[in-house]
Amino acid sequence: MVKTVHSKEVTKAAFNRLQERGVNLSDIAEIVYEMQYAYHPALTLADCIDSVNKVLLKREIQHAILVGVELDVLAEERKLSEPLQSIVETDEGLFGIDETIALGASLGYGSIAVTTFGHLDKNKIGIIRDLDTKRGKGVHTFLDDIVASVAANAASRLAHSFRDQEEIAEEDKKQFEDEGIK
Amino acid sequence: MVKTVHSKEVTKAAFNRLQERGVNLSDIAEIVYEMQYAYHPALTLADCIDSVNKVLLKREIQHAILVGVELDVLAEERKLSEPLQSIVETDEGLFGIDETIALGASLGYGSIAVTTFGHLDKNKIGIIRDLDTKRGKGVHTFLDDIVASVAANAASRLAHSFRDQEEIAEEDKKQFEDEGIK
Amino acid sequence: MVKTVHSKEVTKAAFNRLQERGVNLSDIAEIVYEMQYAYHPALTLADCIDSVNKVLLKREIQHAILVGVELDVLAEERKLSEPLQSIVETDEGLFGIDETIALGASLGYGSIAVTTFGHLDKNKIGIIRDLDTKRGKGVHTFLDDIVASVAANAASRLAHSFRDQEEIAEEDKKQFEDEGIK
Amino acid sequence: MVKTVHSKEVTKAAFNRLQERGVNLSDIAEIVYEMQYAYHPALTLADCIDSVNKVLLKREIQHAILVGVELDVLAEERKLSEPLQSIVETDEGLFGIDETIALGASLGYGSIAVTTFGHLDKNKIGIIRDLDTKRGKGVHTFLDDIVASVAANAASRLAHSFRDQEEIAEEDKKQFEDEGIK
Repeated sequence: MVKTVHSKEVTKAAFNRLQERGVNLSDIAEIVYEMQYAYHPALTLADCIDSVNKVLLKREIQHAILVGVELDVLAEERKLSEPLQSIVETDEGLFGIDETIALGASLGYGSIAVTTFGHLDKNKIGIIRDLDTKRGKGVHTFLDDIVASVAANAASRLAHSFRDQEEIAEEDKKQFEDEGIK
Repeated sequence: MVKTVHSKEVTKAAFNRLQERGVNLSDIAEIVYEMQYAYHPALTLADCIDSVNKVLLKREIQHAILVGVELDVLAEERKLSEPLQSIVETDEGLFGIDETIALGASLGYGSIAVTTFGHLDKNKIGIIRDLDTKRGKGVHTFLDDIVASVAANAASRLAHSFRDQEEIAEEDKKQFEDEGIK
Repeated sequence: MVKTVHSKEVTKAAFNRLQERGVNLSDIAEIVYEMQYAYHPALTLADCIDSVNKVLLKREIQHAILVGVELDVLAEERKLSEPLQSIVETDEGLFGIDETIALGASLGYGSIAVTTFGHLDKNKIGIIRDLDTKRGKGVHTFLDDIVASVAANAASRLAHSFRDQEEIAEEDKKQFEDEGIK
Repeated sequence: MVKTVHSKEVTKAAFNRLQERGVNLSDIAEIVYEMQYAYHPALTLADCIDSVNKVLLKREIQHAILVGVELDVLAEERKLSEPLQSIVETDEGLFGIDETIALGASLGYGSIAVTTFGHLDKNKIGIIRDLDTKRGKGVHTFLDDIVASVAANAASRLAHSFRDQEEIAEEDKKQFEDEGIK
């Protein structure tokens, strides 16, 4: 009988894969900070690391990491069959399965995530740029897009949760006022 | 220097991959016929084969086939790393990268394609069911979804082109009438 | 100065809109039950109502309800400009903005939600069928798709949470065994 | 009996709506040029206008324009019901139905269209910026996103067709060489 894989194993594997491929959570958090600090002056890097962590606990993201890194590594080891090997190895301009998988992982975080993903995918910053230009030293055709997706999702999470906090703060203030406290 | 892969090579590889994995164009065309004949009584299987063929000439679909079949075959040969190997081999219920890639390939054909894809993915019919239940004899975790996507796209193409034909027929009729011919 | 709308107001409006248009949460919950009981024999209608409720607390879903019902009502009152008025009023076959909005609301719940949405959109059951065939008595071009999306999302939530519970149960059992308790 | 709306009427209405709202095809073409000239030095503004035109002939895009502009105009005339009126009028930050409709219209043009759309939506340039900041003089909550989508689609079309042309040119050259002509 087939045993299902426990989600803890999948989580552990996804975090390991990122680290093995040279991506630290703080690298992703820095992009998130860059995207969001203009809107939320009180934002700290720790908030961003926390948000990245929460995103990485989602099954859909973990599966995207496992599939994407697997294909990158197989291309690096030249173990894919042709013509896929050449397409992935050269990150061929019209190949879009990498963006499809990464975008699919961002759709769960709403429209802010999707447009932020598109922005990051075009204007590769930080670790995304490092991965994208590290060609020769390794294949990161899938990983750069997935990192952009994780960063976009973490940014969207923050935008939504800041809004929730503002509303709670406003309500508290209103309650004080209603009670004549000020 | 890196050479880009010519699109003819990609096309040829995509058609070959389907055939190697036991999927004939007429198998897909039958699903298309099943989905559309109620709306278009004049529809023939040849129309459906033609529509499937046109869908298979699209780069995005070809790339989806190459990536999906590659992962299926690697899983069959037990060459994926764990836990991805177990996840793909067992077509684990909450794994969704297969649907993400297939859905991504259907988004290009509009909302009829997307809802038809969802329908086919739930109510696996014809070759899709054969692939889905052929477990033990092979891994088709990705391929069954991609075939559903190709069938859905071909069905959507037909729905749109039948509508265009109706409008042209109506215009011709109107022109005859305007000219007093009837 | 422009005041942002508090999320509580949006939530209240979304729930009211559904009720005004004749959609009760239990109607949606019944579809969810229908979709999921085969996989989870212990599932109750109360679980499904709870899941529908949680889905309806999401901003993206609420916004989809507000926009969709607004357009349905405006079409009913013949207040849209032509040719949009005729397109929405007749739920014209190739019009897909209703599916786009509903699908957009389902993308946040992963691939199970998307394929379930496609299935429900094709095989309209329960309240979705009632809305779809109630033509003449009212326009529900957008609402039937949005209800399908809410039901699909609630079904996907349940599938994921049942899996989480199974894993926790398994861990508890394992822990007992490890401690020699059994 | 209900008459279906002829696609020519829909096409005409969509083009008119853009013009009425102050969007010229050349405004959109300029954005396309800006996005693509770096990759294709031979690109002309006329190529871009042609590509925008082709995109605007697609049903899904036309429907998105009709729905989006309708909602903008109704918000301008304060004819939407609350809280939707305030949300659309202020282009409320977490409202995403505008992006959902626009993104839905871009999904048909592949991953280049989607990432370009995200980029344009974040870094509003040209007419998109004009629409976005024209607040007070009018509501363009939906239209700025839809214009971004049309521009992104036209850019993606060009990227794909340039690639096709390169391949044809290469084949012609090869044929000359094969025939010993040079």
